Amino acid sequence: MQPDLSVLAALTSALGPAGVLTQPSDMAAYATDQRGIAVSAPVAVLRPASTQETAAAVRLCAAAGLPIVPQGGNTGLAGGAVARPERPAALLNLGRMDRIRELDALDYTVTVEAGCILQRLREAADAADRQFPLSLAAEGSCTVGGILSTNAGGVMTLRYGNARDLVLGLEVVLADGQVWQGLRRLRKDNTGYDLKHLFLGAEGTLGIITAATLKLFPRPRRTDTLFAALPDPDAAIALSARLRNATADALTAFELVPRFAIDGAARYLGEQIDPLPAAPSPWYALVELTSGSADGALRRQAEAALAAALDEGLIQDAVFAESEAQRRALWRVREAPPEIGRKVGGALHHDVSVPVSRVPAFIAEATAAVTALVPGCRPYPFGHVADGNIHYNIARPETMSGEAFLARGPEVKRRVHDIALAHNGSISAEHGIGLFKRDELQRVKPALELELMRRMKAALDPAGIMNPGKVLPEA
Amino acid sequence: MQPDLSVLAALTSALGPAGVLTQPSDMAAYATDQRGIAVSAPVAVLRPASTQETAAAVRLCAAAGLPIVPQGGNTGLAGGAVARPERPAALLNLGRMDRIRELDALDYTVTVEAGCILQRLREAADAADRQFPLSLAAEGSCTVGGILSTNAGGVMTLRYGNARDLVLGLEVVLADGQVWQGLRRLRKDNTGYDLKHLFLGAEGTLGIITAATLKLFPRPRRTDTLFAALPDPDAAIALSARLRNATADALTAFELVPRFAIDGAARYLGEQIDPLPAAPSPWYALVELTSGSADGALRRQAEAALAAALDEGLIQDAVFAESEAQRRALWRVREAPPEIGRKVGGALHHDVSVPVSRVPAFIAEATAAVTALVPGCRPYPFGHVADGNIHYNIARPETMSGEAFLARGPEVKRRVHDIALAHNGSISAEHGIGLFKRDELQRVKPALELELMRRMKAALDPAGIMNPGKVLPEA
Repeated sequence: MQPDLSVLAALTSALGPAGVLTQPSDMAAYATDQRGIAVSAPVAVLRPASTQETAAAVRLCAAAGLPIVPQGGNTGLAGGAVARPERPAALLNLGRMDRIRELDALDYTVTVEAGCILQRLREAADAADRQFPLSLAAEGSCTVGGILSTNAGGVMTLRYGNARDLVLGLEVVLADGQVWQGLRRLRKDNTGYDLKHLFLGAEGTLGIITAATLKLFPRPRRTDTLFAALPDPDAAIALSARLRNATADALTAFELVPRFAIDGAARYLGEQIDPLPAAPSPWYALVELTSGSADGALRRQAEAALAAALDEGLIQDAVFAESEAQRRALWRVREAPPEIGRKVGGALHHDVSVPVSRVPAFIAEATAAVTALVPGCRPYPFGHVADGNIHYNIARPETMSGEAFLARGPEVKRRVHDIALAHNGSISAEHGIGLFKRDELQRVKPALELELMRRMKAALDPAGIMNPGKVLPEA
Repeated sequence: MQPDLSVLAALTSALGPAGVLTQPSDMAAYATDQRGIAVSAPVAVLRPASTQETAAAVRLCAAAGLPIVPQGGNTGLAGGAVARPERPAALLNLGRMDRIRELDALDYTVTVEAGCILQRLREAADAADRQFPLSLAAEGSCTVGGILSTNAGGVMTLRYGNARDLVLGLEVVLADGQVWQGLRRLRKDNTGYDLKHLFLGAEGTLGIITAATLKLFPRPRRTDTLFAALPDPDAAIALSARLRNATADALTAFELVPRFAIDGAARYLGEQIDPLPAAPSPWYALVELTSGSADGALRRQAEAALAAALDEGLIQDAVFAESEAQRRALWRVREAPPEIGRKVGGALHHDVSVPVSRVPAFIAEATAAVTALVPGCRPYPFGHVADGNIHYNIARPETMSGEAFLARGPEVKRRVHDIALAHNGSISAEHGIGLFKRDELQRVKPALELELMRRMKAALDPAGIMNPGKVLPEA
């Protein structure tokens, strides 16, 4: 059924001219995903300024049969905020709803609108001597609504959990335009089914998150950052478990980095970034610990654990950052792989997870498999291994064109996913399903789980108006 | 429609004679709730020994139209595991499914069956140098399935969250007898809707949790316990926020205790338990901090924060436990109020929560209201105030019979709940809804939330076979 586009006039009445964009030049900024690889062709871009306007827009679109694609900062990596050309739809961008409604330091809570940029939220928490502990590369442009709708992860998940774990309450515009006012700031509330978890991580397919009440945490008083050289990924997993225990969970980040990050930075980025140049190692760990006291007790605990690890050959060397500049330099090594991937002229990306103890076996098996499929390809797995989350990325062989390598993508991806699944893993640890992994999800997800997901979709969006064709195929 | 009771023979074939109890003397242990105040009249008690037997039992009961009431340790306080006499049903007790299937210290995970007693799970974690951080009074008899189905809280929620926050994966027998095998042990998995949260806290009304994969944490190396005298509940909230910040969230428990706990223990339990007898105070806080190092650094941080609090009049005195015996003695004060309540000859109980900063206002308003309603009644609010969770309990007036006081229960409860709700609070913080709060939930929950809950129920249990009449009225 084709939507009734006369709804655009009614939408303009409801949202005002600034709230309804229909000129291609005005829509361009919203109509292309961050990586520029998905063509988006919305009928209009809606930019409501309030929950009431969002609700009015949904009611009008629902009546007209016009689907809605909710959008935050448009930084997603799974095509979840793309308006597919073959399916006329309105993009609903929440960027004008960006207020921090209330921050209560005594309650350790903040209530914020969906369009607020993550970095602004983190700065507001800092200013109140609190911490909002979710941090990821896109934090300067991604929004609260986006991180909640995709259940974002990032570099602090090890200690503070995923985005959904940080939520106390939600305000949601439902598929029929009703507003669920669930902005509670209760730490405990056992009064029936937990409705907020339906919408968290649902990528806008069940409703539109317009605001959230989030947990805040104490602001750390001291951060210790270290970089360790490791013989293999087994050592990384053993070291992370030991450091968790030795520091009573003061471990905030534990990132695996392959040698390729250092060699690739020299070659493709022209940067010399090796923090331990005396003895090159195949693997490294970037570790960060945070403490509520500035006295260095935590560093001494970590040093004792590292000394024991050195004696046992679990690590080969390690260095602590002694200044913020040194800390930035250590993080630079962790941040290099994605940048190298953009310069290497052809790379395949995977966002998989496995049980933490299975990380070494997964990396070994995946590497054997992909180098057999495409001899000479260069895997550079990195990321949040203490959560079991590996960005298993692969650069093209030196002697193969990027085009030829990317043409092998479907085959390579399927193989990597199958190996993760054989270890009871996931094909999307933190990036979500969106459009790009939708069909792969149909292939790998047990039929019963897909059936339960379809029942949730039918129960909350019976007309199929909310971000249709994302996560699940259209009914 | 009356169920077809010829199903009992088929159930006995499927579960064996030990799996189907029909004699009143055999059923008695399961048929009465812990407090003995709800009469339970099951058609049979089913005791499956495996997931497959549980699934077979559900299939048979579903086909016969015989509702199922799932039951763990039968320690619930909301009547959720009671088979109502007016509604023929089978009690399905999970006590025979009590295996710890796998504990992986490297992964910090454990997979355990629903019937496993919480205390056994905690001991198994300790033995592996790990911690399962959920602790409550009934831990010697409550089960994993029960704590997950009620999303239990307890004394460590402040640091580790509620039961649902500790779950990585579930195995669930659905209402049609299919088994959802969701026992993942992934820290990150964004592949569609998060199905486990549907069943967690659903009190067995959407399916039967048969096993779970749970998070483990580092085992603390040192515990510091202190008891502080406070002028008022405001001081408790301010002190908890300060200690959280001063110790970077090493605060594991922060419990408010009223003077009534000490005076009532002397009078009703014959125990002298005042840890600070020199200067009686109206309010106290029991505080516990845990650390990953045994060096006492955390205690020094806490002492510095307490010294500042003393200077500012936020606390009047404080004492640290210097031995395990002293620690037990301090906890005794926190544990006294529920025992006093059973001896006082008539007490009303409330399990409410409000935003943390609203605790003092809630206590003041509730106390003014209930003493106006029933002059002379003796409120003794206590509990997990740093989570905003107050067990607002009230002893009968000295001059009124317990019977006369309890007859005022409905009126008093409604008033206390309305005051909690006026502060955007909850009428059930950690105990759940079950049977006893079902009608009150209908009164206070917004119509839209009840509608969304009914849609979840219809989507997952269309025949209404799973614990009917609990949480929601029967359709």
